[in-house]
Amino acid sequence: MNQLKPSKANSPPLTPLGFLERAANVYGDCTSIVYNTTTYTWSDTHRRCLRVASSIASTGIKKGDVVSVLAPNIPAMYELHFAVPMSGAILNNINTRLDSRTISVLLRHSECKLVFVDYELTPLLVESVSLLPPTCPQPMIALIDSVENDTEEEFQIRGTSDKFVFSYEDMVQNGDPDFKWIQPDSEWDPIVLNYTSGTTSAPKGVVHCHRGAFIMSMDALVDWSIPKQPVYLWTLPMFHANGWSFPWGMAAVGATNICLRRFNGPAVYDTIRRHGVTHMCGAPVVLNMLSNQPDLTPLPIPVHFLAAGSSPPTVVLLKAERLGFIVTHGYGLTETCGVIVSCAWKPSWNKFPPFDRAKLKSRQGIRTLSTTEVDILDSETGNPVPKDGKSSGEIVIRGGSLFLGYFKDPETTLKSMGNDGWFKTGDIGVMHKDGYLEIKDRSKDIIISGGENISSVEIESMLYTFPAINEAAVVAKSDDYWGETPCAFVSLKGGVTKRPSERDVIEYCRAKLPHYMVPKTVVFKDELPKTSTGKIQKSLLREMAKELGSSRVSRL
Amino acid sequence: MNQLKPSKANSPPLTPLGFLERAANVYGDCTSIVYNTTTYTWSDTHRRCLRVASSIASTGIKKGDVVSVLAPNIPAMYELHFAVPMSGAILNNINTRLDSRTISVLLRHSECKLVFVDYELTPLLVESVSLLPPTCPQPMIALIDSVENDTEEEFQIRGTSDKFVFSYEDMVQNGDPDFKWIQPDSEWDPIVLNYTSGTTSAPKGVVHCHRGAFIMSMDALVDWSIPKQPVYLWTLPMFHANGWSFPWGMAAVGATNICLRRFNGPAVYDTIRRHGVTHMCGAPVVLNMLSNQPDLTPLPIPVHFLAAGSSPPTVVLLKAERLGFIVTHGYGLTETCGVIVSCAWKPSWNKFPPFDRAKLKSRQGIRTLSTTEVDILDSETGNPVPKDGKSSGEIVIRGGSLFLGYFKDPETTLKSMGNDGWFKTGDIGVMHKDGYLEIKDRSKDIIISGGENISSVEIESMLYTFPAINEAAVVAKSDDYWGETPCAFVSLKGGVTKRPSERDVIEYCRAKLPHYMVPKTVVFKDELPKTSTGKIQKSLLREMAKELGSSRVSRL
Repeated sequence: MNQLKPSKANSPPLTPLGFLERAANVYGDCTSIVYNTTTYTWSDTHRRCLRVASSIASTGIKKGDVVSVLAPNIPAMYELHFAVPMSGAILNNINTRLDSRTISVLLRHSECKLVFVDYELTPLLVESVSLLPPTCPQPMIALIDSVENDTEEEFQIRGTSDKFVFSYEDMVQNGDPDFKWIQPDSEWDPIVLNYTSGTTSAPKGVVHCHRGAFIMSMDALVDWSIPKQPVYLWTLPMFHANGWSFPWGMAAVGATNICLRRFNGPAVYDTIRRHGVTHMCGAPVVLNMLSNQPDLTPLPIPVHFLAAGSSPPTVVLLKAERLGFIVTHGYGLTETCGVIVSCAWKPSWNKFPPFDRAKLKSRQGIRTLSTTEVDILDSETGNPVPKDGKSSGEIVIRGGSLFLGYFKDPETTLKSMGNDGWFKTGDIGVMHKDGYLEIKDRSKDIIISGGENISSVEIESMLYTFPAINEAAVVAKSDDYWGETPCAFVSLKGGVTKRPSERDVIEYCRAKLPHYMVPKTVVFKDELPKTSTGKIQKSLLREMAKELGSSRVSRL
Repeated sequence: MNQLKPSKANSPPLTPLGFLERAANVYGDCTSIVYNTTTYTWSDTHRRCLRVASSIASTGIKKGDVVSVLAPNIPAMYELHFAVPMSGAILNNINTRLDSRTISVLLRHSECKLVFVDYELTPLLVESVSLLPPTCPQPMIALIDSVENDTEEEFQIRGTSDKFVFSYEDMVQNGDPDFKWIQPDSEWDPIVLNYTSGTTSAPKGVVHCHRGAFIMSMDALVDWSIPKQPVYLWTLPMFHANGWSFPWGMAAVGATNICLRRFNGPAVYDTIRRHGVTHMCGAPVVLNMLSNQPDLTPLPIPVHFLAAGSSPPTVVLLKAERLGFIVTHGYGLTETCGVIVSCAWKPSWNKFPPFDRAKLKSRQGIRTLSTTEVDILDSETGNPVPKDGKSSGEIVIRGGSLFLGYFKDPETTLKSMGNDGWFKTGDIGVMHKDGYLEIKDRSKDIIISGGENISSVEIESMLYTFPAINEAAVVAKSDDYWGETPCAFVSLKGGVTKRPSERDVIEYCRAKLPHYMVPKTVVFKDELPKTSTGKIQKSLLREMAKELGSSRVSRL
């Protein structure tokens, strides 16, 4: 039967962009986006995206050019996930917490032609652009004006700067709602470019194609069993791995997207109650923050929370579930376009006590449907490790939503995704007997003390059971004798009456951990430093640990 | 960025076959299949499929060989949807209602190497094989023995015939549960071959590839919002377009598959209540049958019913929904691998009265997420018809789940799916203003009377509102004067006290339809002839109409 070849009718490029027109047809009258007092319908969003896409195209942006966005979770940010690729360009979301020097490097590396910038972030962008070398062509800049209230601040920005060639709302107004959006020539054409590390020396630009984004969008809807018309709260920054592909997925199911410029615990609870939020995503620290608010009452309806980025500590899971969050735990990287391993719940686990259930859920889990294979390879032999929950190795992945490669970096691309058919994550994990994966650590987070590999995650999990501790992170601290020793950074809960001492915490650990794993140093902080996506910044903590000098407590 | 090319890690072939191992990992202890007193878990099903696949491979079957199955909805039928393609072979389900001559033609056309046959259907198969020309290599035959009770009848079959080289349960027992199943080399490799028409002259063998089956499986899960672990009742024959891809989809969500060898109204209701059925599929006639049972009480829990194959008459929808069926109406062909247009429900429709809601739902609807485009082309100009709900033309489709082509028939393949990028369905429809498609008729079902196109579907819908009518079908009857006139075949409900006359029905139609659309002939039948998939056999009715001779009632 090999004479049968794909034809134009059965092999149109897979892409998530077509979800939008369909949403306008089915859910045209329904709310697509809510932001403060602004509300759009799916008809509005469809038309606005087409108009912006046509305006982008009319600036001279060509197929394959990079268009960047520097914005928080506002409606324009959502719209640009459709509008930019619909214009034929490649969407490049920039992490809003980066400094101007790094942003300048990324703009240059991506050869960005146009940047959309939120009015609050314009000083950062203007500075970034000013740092571009004189020989480097400057990108055009479009200002995302506030649609609600033209603040004094914003007027000033608009009035005084000649940098802003376009206003976003003008691009909406002047664009063509009947624009024929630019279809990809191939499903392997790039749709997004995401920089994963902010280091100025070697920007790693992850390129995803239309096919991968389509597959991940569909996969995530099935894996999380998302019903039609959920109410989705945007706490996860859309600039972070394109919001794990949910901007596209939410159009597929006609969701109400609740946008928030910034959030804290009370704001999230207020939004959940006001809009009847059903789904949200975030790092486990967000869940922790939500569980540690004062005066909590259970949620009016259950809220599905997809947690990824690191293992949610058992106690955090327990607290959150008691409040009414239904937590799904998943794992992915910028390179996977979203969650490609998730802790699919086994009905047989329901019989276990809550603590054991939470422990099971804190494992990363099993490949999603569109992920072909996930394995753990022994770092020395390159063979799969035994499924014993103990033997650790590097997590490797093969699947339909993996990235195309790193932009302008064939060497790193080949190193991470070579001819052996695996993408090597750099994360260290074990495979349990039941085929569920558990991350022990990102490779760089492993602490090697006296030749023993120590998992910082394990120590952290234990620290979270200490009643007064709010957050905990453990990093390696160099030690003349042991090579490295674990150094714990902790913050305490508000309202703690008796503050524990370093010694208290160490004694607590001694009672529960093998001696070689007990932190030799415990540092109390008011708050642990975090990335914009809510991950604790271990690199900063490692710097702090270095500054502490040699161990302050006696060796065990 | 075009230097970035797919690599082995990010372009593994899309296939639904990997769903099974995942189901065994996640839902290993949960029920996969229930059939009378037999129950399997997902671990069992996974192992059984691997064992059968290894046994198939060990018979000498090679990659790309065709393996046929002639069986009702029994566990083996479900298992073979995985086992056959896992062995590298192509699955060919044969309609169990075909006659031996037709089956013999299909076996020859497909160059079938091995047939799995249910013990009840062995006489049919043996006869079919005996009709193969002497020069044609005979397929091996594997008998699907009853796993429950070795009936006398079955023993006789086993004992007396030397045709049966294998027994299915022996293949399970002797197979290797650690068999490394044969991955497709490319996602465009064939996975199934389905014959759509039973005519002996020109068998049309629809070939689907792994990619298409994967895309359809995922698409259907999202489109029907199928949750994890539904209880799925197999009323739709699996041999019919591979059960619209749900054998694969149900493994993806760890469903309980309830198998029934045959069914009637009471059996379905009994099964629904006993097993807590949540989902089922079927032609609208199944829904009609279920709605017309005597002594009906509402369902204990809502049952989701996906109806496709023809438009469900409004009154049938109303009755079924009153009983507790949540009906989704979709449209697809064997060539589309499943439902690619569905009547996605608009929340704004909830405000309409029940009859209007049912009327809206009886439209076929809008493309699913993986279907790139659906349009209606004017048969003369080839241009899209206006979206006015009136202008009709041929329905054409482009999308990710379309078939590869017709086996050994490049001419028909090119005719139905040429270089214009459309698959031409042969169905006639209109496009409504809201982008929803409504089928007016299969092209061959259009009645042309005095130059006017008459939709038989419209007349049928109206006939279903006649209180005493159970089922109705309208076909063209040749007429010297008008060319063609509508001829109605109807069956009456059980327990009807006053049987209407032909004149009563015609008068009823006259009051509700334009005169040219009123049937000139009404024929009462005890039951209308149906295909195995429950579609009314219009071809037979057309023959009957021919035999009636010229119109029996005076012209209007």
